[in-house]
Amino acid sequence: MHPFDTATLLESLPDGSFRGHTSPAYANMIGPFGGAVAACLLQAPMRHSARLGEPIALTVNFAAALADGEFRIHARVLRTNRSTQHWAMELSQGGEVAASATAVFAQRRETWSAPEAAPPANLPAADTLMRSPLIGRPAWTHRYDMRFARGGMPDAFDEQQQLDSVSQVWVRDEPPRALDFIALAALCDSFFPRIFVRRRKIAPIGTVSLTTYFHADAAMLQAQDGRHVLGAARALNFRNGYFDQSAEVWSDDWQLLASSHQIVYYRE
Amino acid sequence: MHPFDTATLLESLPDGSFRGHTSPAYANMIGPFGGAVAACLLQAPMRHSARLGEPIALTVNFAAALADGEFRIHARVLRTNRSTQHWAMELSQGGEVAASATAVFAQRRETWSAPEAAPPANLPAADTLMRSPLIGRPAWTHRYDMRFARGGMPDAFDEQQQLDSVSQVWVRDEPPRALDFIALAALCDSFFPRIFVRRRKIAPIGTVSLTTYFHADAAMLQAQDGRHVLGAARALNFRNGYFDQSAEVWSDDWQLLASSHQIVYYRE
Repeated sequence: MHPFDTATLLESLPDGSFRGHTSPAYANMIGPFGGAVAACLLQAPMRHSARLGEPIALTVNFAAALADGEFRIHARVLRTNRSTQHWAMELSQGGEVAASATAVFAQRRETWSAPEAAPPANLPAADTLMRSPLIGRPAWTHRYDMRFARGGMPDAFDEQQQLDSVSQVWVRDEPPRALDFIALAALCDSFFPRIFVRRRKIAPIGTVSLTTYFHADAAMLQAQDGRHVLGAARALNFRNGYFDQSAEVWSDDWQLLASSHQIVYYRE
Repeated sequence: MHPFDTATLLESLPDGSFRGHTSPAYANMIGPFGGAVAACLLQAPMRHSARLGEPIALTVNFAAALADGEFRIHARVLRTNRSTQHWAMELSQGGEVAASATAVFAQRRETWSAPEAAPPANLPAADTLMRSPLIGRPAWTHRYDMRFARGGMPDAFDEQQQLDSVSQVWVRDEPPRALDFIALAALCDSFFPRIFVRRRKIAPIGTVSLTTYFHADAAMLQAQDGRHVLGAARALNFRNGYFDQSAEVWSDDWQLLASSHQIVYYRE
């Protein structure tokens, strides 16, 4: 079993909720990698018998650092329409809410379609770039093969402030795993904190709220299989304890798979 | 009383929920303007006696077109931390959920701060631009003074597809009203649908999910008062029934007040 599938394994309980367990393979500095938490929160409606369609939008609010161990997810259908379905999820530990989420699912139909944003141009191929070093980094980073063309995690935190926090990175699960919605939901949170790239200074940070829009359907994700996708991330603003991040994830044939936004707490 | 304050007036009910009423002044083609709904959903925790801090993030999922008339909002604190508070809200009509939302509030502290994105450059001043015409447009558009430097609502839906959907617009409440969080939450949804700008073709559309990050605190909004703010909006992708929009709202002294993202259903 792939470690990501172990980390996102949910057991159905008689009351309709799910039981999951944090995975050492996706451990972060404190508690689990937020992307794995987001994936579990999406997994609950994905696995629910009432679910219709594919995910379009996912928002996860991280209310507390998860403790290592068991958690419960309760997923409720708020409304089912002709082509969309609205969900609310809560993840709790010891009876306290640790994360909440909402998701919208939809049955897509073929319509006029057009890209507007373009993927980063003139990017070196993934296999010509070095894999991002792992020494001294938390376990979850070992579960991704990341090859930065620009804006990688600084080698040294020398406090040399950069002009921007833009990252461009080829990334896939490690070991490779066929891409699906839950893996994409997790991968959208795999970009290193923008403030580390910008300031080259370590400070306590934590994602507060994460929203991902899925532009791809299941067939597009299946076609991407386990190959590297292209990620691009940047911040708009850092101000009094909170900065944002916007990221896009492109297939290796340059189709937008997901766009993802988050707001992150920081100190100092 | 300003029409926006009428539209976002909530009455506290004995069970802790709120009663609101759609306002003809903010009517859209079908039901109320989504921005007014988002503002009401933020207003509930803002007015709640348990609320601590100022809003950082707001996500609204529109589950159904609201009917004109009364609605209920139920707002729950999910978790209160040392400096953040997590909320979940549900708006219902006739016992059915019409919209759900989550919000994160925070007590901000002064930290290292820096902009990264820049506002649109070389923009003509608001008073040198024409106000966007209102004839034949829904009531809510009359409640904003919008002056487009680029990417306004097309004069003619001639189906001449444009290269992009970028808009740059000076916008304020009409009549002017001092900016606050709820007005900013509404204004973030005031950009016309990107697909109209891009395709110059009318089609049925509806915002499915809207997320706004507040970069400003109350003092910055107060300083902006009732003057035009600068909005910039664009889409990344239009695909099989859903397109996204990202927008930034800047003060007239070029500080980022909010960034806002949405995913929108469209037909054809």
